[in-house]
Amino acid sequence: MDDVTLNILERPELKNPVLIEGLPGIGLVGKLAADHLKDEIKATKFAEITSPYLPPQVNIKDDGTVVPVTMDFYWYKGKQDLIILLGDFQGVTPDSQYRLSEKILDLAKDMGVNRIYTLGGLGTGSITEEPRVFGAATSKGLVTELDGKKIIFKGGGAIFGASGLLLGLSMKKGLDAVCLMGETHGQIIDAKSAEAVLELLTDILGMKVDMGELEKKAKQTQEQINQMSKIITNYKQAAERQQEMLDENPFYIR
Amino acid sequence: MDDVTLNILERPELKNPVLIEGLPGIGLVGKLAADHLKDEIKATKFAEITSPYLPPQVNIKDDGTVVPVTMDFYWYKGKQDLIILLGDFQGVTPDSQYRLSEKILDLAKDMGVNRIYTLGGLGTGSITEEPRVFGAATSKGLVTELDGKKIIFKGGGAIFGASGLLLGLSMKKGLDAVCLMGETHGQIIDAKSAEAVLELLTDILGMKVDMGELEKKAKQTQEQINQMSKIITNYKQAAERQQEMLDENPFYIR
Amino acid sequence: MDDVTLNILERPELKNPVLIEGLPGIGLVGKLAADHLKDEIKATKFAEITSPYLPPQVNIKDDGTVVPVTMDFYWYKGKQDLIILLGDFQGVTPDSQYRLSEKILDLAKDMGVNRIYTLGGLGTGSITEEPRVFGAATSKGLVTELDGKKIIFKGGGAIFGASGLLLGLSMKKGLDAVCLMGETHGQIIDAKSAEAVLELLTDILGMKVDMGELEKKAKQTQEQINQMSKIITNYKQAAERQQEMLDENPFYIR
Amino acid sequence: MDDVTLNILERPELKNPVLIEGLPGIGLVGKLAADHLKDEIKATKFAEITSPYLPPQVNIKDDGTVVPVTMDFYWYKGKQDLIILLGDFQGVTPDSQYRLSEKILDLAKDMGVNRIYTLGGLGTGSITEEPRVFGAATSKGLVTELDGKKIIFKGGGAIFGASGLLLGLSMKKGLDAVCLMGETHGQIIDAKSAEAVLELLTDILGMKVDMGELEKKAKQTQEQINQMSKIITNYKQAAERQQEMLDENPFYIR
Repeated sequence: MDDVTLNILERPELKNPVLIEGLPGIGLVGKLAADHLKDEIKATKFAEITSPYLPPQVNIKDDGTVVPVTMDFYWYKGKQDLIILLGDFQGVTPDSQYRLSEKILDLAKDMGVNRIYTLGGLGTGSITEEPRVFGAATSKGLVTELDGKKIIFKGGGAIFGASGLLLGLSMKKGLDAVCLMGETHGQIIDAKSAEAVLELLTDILGMKVDMGELEKKAKQTQEQINQMSKIITNYKQAAERQQEMLDENPFYIR
Repeated sequence: MDDVTLNILERPELKNPVLIEGLPGIGLVGKLAADHLKDEIKATKFAEITSPYLPPQVNIKDDGTVVPVTMDFYWYKGKQDLIILLGDFQGVTPDSQYRLSEKILDLAKDMGVNRIYTLGGLGTGSITEEPRVFGAATSKGLVTELDGKKIIFKGGGAIFGASGLLLGLSMKKGLDAVCLMGETHGQIIDAKSAEAVLELLTDILGMKVDMGELEKKAKQTQEQINQMSKIITNYKQAAERQQEMLDENPFYIR
Repeated sequence: MDDVTLNILERPELKNPVLIEGLPGIGLVGKLAADHLKDEIKATKFAEITSPYLPPQVNIKDDGTVVPVTMDFYWYKGKQDLIILLGDFQGVTPDSQYRLSEKILDLAKDMGVNRIYTLGGLGTGSITEEPRVFGAATSKGLVTELDGKKIIFKGGGAIFGASGLLLGLSMKKGLDAVCLMGETHGQIIDAKSAEAVLELLTDILGMKVDMGELEKKAKQTQEQINQMSKIITNYKQAAERQQEMLDENPFYIR
Repeated sequence: MDDVTLNILERPELKNPVLIEGLPGIGLVGKLAADHLKDEIKATKFAEITSPYLPPQVNIKDDGTVVPVTMDFYWYKGKQDLIILLGDFQGVTPDSQYRLSEKILDLAKDMGVNRIYTLGGLGTGSITEEPRVFGAATSKGLVTELDGKKIIFKGGGAIFGASGLLLGLSMKKGLDAVCLMGETHGQIIDAKSAEAVLELLTDILGMKVDMGELEKKAKQTQEQINQMSKIITNYKQAAERQQEMLDENPFYIR
């Protein structure tokens, strides 16, 4: 079994596509923004990554069938062709983050991508009415190019996970990459911050996307999560007790 | 040393066998149900998996001899031929769950299996007199096929470990698989829930199994575990102290 | 870099040697017993294992030079030739326990070993004046053979780490192996229990070893550890603070 | 993707260079000392290590561009040619510490290095006006050679991480290596201790380095860290909440 497997379902003909990454992170800002973009522009799934480095589970759909855990690639043809990377999880170990990001960039290069935007949140611990968007880029030229857009480049800090590694590994491969981070509290699913990030991204790409459904989507997610809280607490207690039950060792020797 | 080693002890001639998975999980529901089925139909062990991804220990039998940690496959020939997968443990790391499930499916395909039932518990945190059985399946066709049986397909949630991964990985290999999950509290070893799951499974398979010994078995297991509690507590304190004793570092430099 | 490297320093000519394992565990019973045996019979080091699965450190000797972390093999020629396995650590991950034990058995087979004794403690949480020795073996024949010796074979429980795995993996390779476990509190370094184990072992091997220095050695170790306690506490606080200091992330994005 | 990748940017011609390791550890003593040395003698970066065993992140520079996590090698030509190893992190798992240290020594050998000095702190839990420097070495000859310098060789204890492993692995490769450890509290970034270590090192090397900026540098780092504390606390709360939000499992089955 390969460590990271890429399944290509179809090979769209894209012209200088831009890759947009929206995997889950702080405030689910990047995921919300990229999910919404995919829905609004009706992008089409064309490839997926499976890996033992993703959580060992399947999710149950409403019709009772299951879906494996994957990272999914969608294509869109327009004034600016796009590839959007979405998923419910990132790699479960530090080194798997590297291995998954390498595979993502392999596909990107193979599809002719030269520019990547990774989307994330920047946790501040406070709630802001008008969240700002911070940026980081793989070159000084990119920082200059984005001058004039509503983006703040300020130094310090670190970008963890795929949103960061895709930048770091792009530098080695000669790809341009920018991370857009929406200011967010960190403890809420933040539609406002996702909107700010998506507004900036679509401005950069020369696109226009309706944001009406974005807040609704975030609210639904938040409600779902609230309902789940009690069940998760139940489960956690069960799992702990379970662990004790399975510890069937009257004595332990080594 | 291979990561997952399959030892085939004998090669039974089976006709379209169905694979039943009963590894330990919440309430030990799946394990109890599958263990009981194996005992009642007197299934015969024919293969085992050993792996560094299983816990590094041996268990001591009543006669003073030891048994390595394995996952065991049993065969049964009847109106419906069966392969039953049993064991005391699942893989110890997330990725090992994938690697073990892959090996299980390799054997299943090799033995001509086309249909898999994985058995598990669904932790609710409350005790139910008549536990329901929930289901999830690899295709809409399977959901429809089981319509009319005492099984509830409702969306949401996730299935972790082998019971889930065997479904997810079956989809890639063109195998049909269904997970049957008995409603259970989560903090008790639940014979009632195991009985509900086994009643449903045998109904699906067109078999009949006596449930008399099932509750007795669960009670014995529970009693054993209660007795062990004190010893385990002792051990845990010893292990912690032990760790300190082994930390033979007057200073620590790096 | 190989995962487990065996360096053979010299190749002693041994006749049907017995392998004795004394790696650290509960009460340091097995380690104390095997260390003492090695000292008393003046066994000679002839091979060592190094591995990235051992802790990433070196220890400082009294003369200011360092020693890498190894597992060491000693030989002894006498009425019964012996190979003794000693070390300060076991493998740091569950799967590394398997890989290290495999390498140990490879050397054992290569040296003509047919019989293995693994030494350990059995934590009970109480102090006993005359600690009993419990046993577990790879075959019923071995249990019968040891009948009449001061050893108790009683079922139940598990043997973790090298003392257990060496038995489990021996079964696959056709080697005989017995684990001798001295009853011990678990929270003290137990010379009494080590003495009981060593008395039994030498009785089985038809040897005689003076136990005078064993208790002294255990006391010294205990005193050393007591002195270290304060320093270790200091270190732990420093390490925690250190971790915070290294967390040089004004914000964290993914 | 290789586990540890060495990128050589240029190949300086060095004569019997000495390798100095200054990766982060207790009190940041070794890192401060080696960073300061590099700045004062204006050493030039010529190689870097990247690895999935380093944290999965990029750091943001003041100009808004990012830098991947690397271990960096600098060269200096003088009375004594030097190679200095610097970085912000050590390997994230025990075994990766071994694999990174092996690669470091491969480069060292390739560059003609015969002597290595690793720099670290020795945590004591108390503040000392005049921190002493302790040493450990790969041979008795080295201990004797350094006799007369302000260095204390006393036995006991262990050296963890690269500062220790580089010694342990050097022994196998026939390289001489010494660890210099500055006495330090452990909970402060310790410029005084770093100065003591660097004074000793430069005395050994027959060099002279101005220490004026060292304390300033340490103070700046400490201030930066103090400011960051509140933000880190915010982040940690966010990350915990985030984890709960992503646990989108109404029930958990296995």
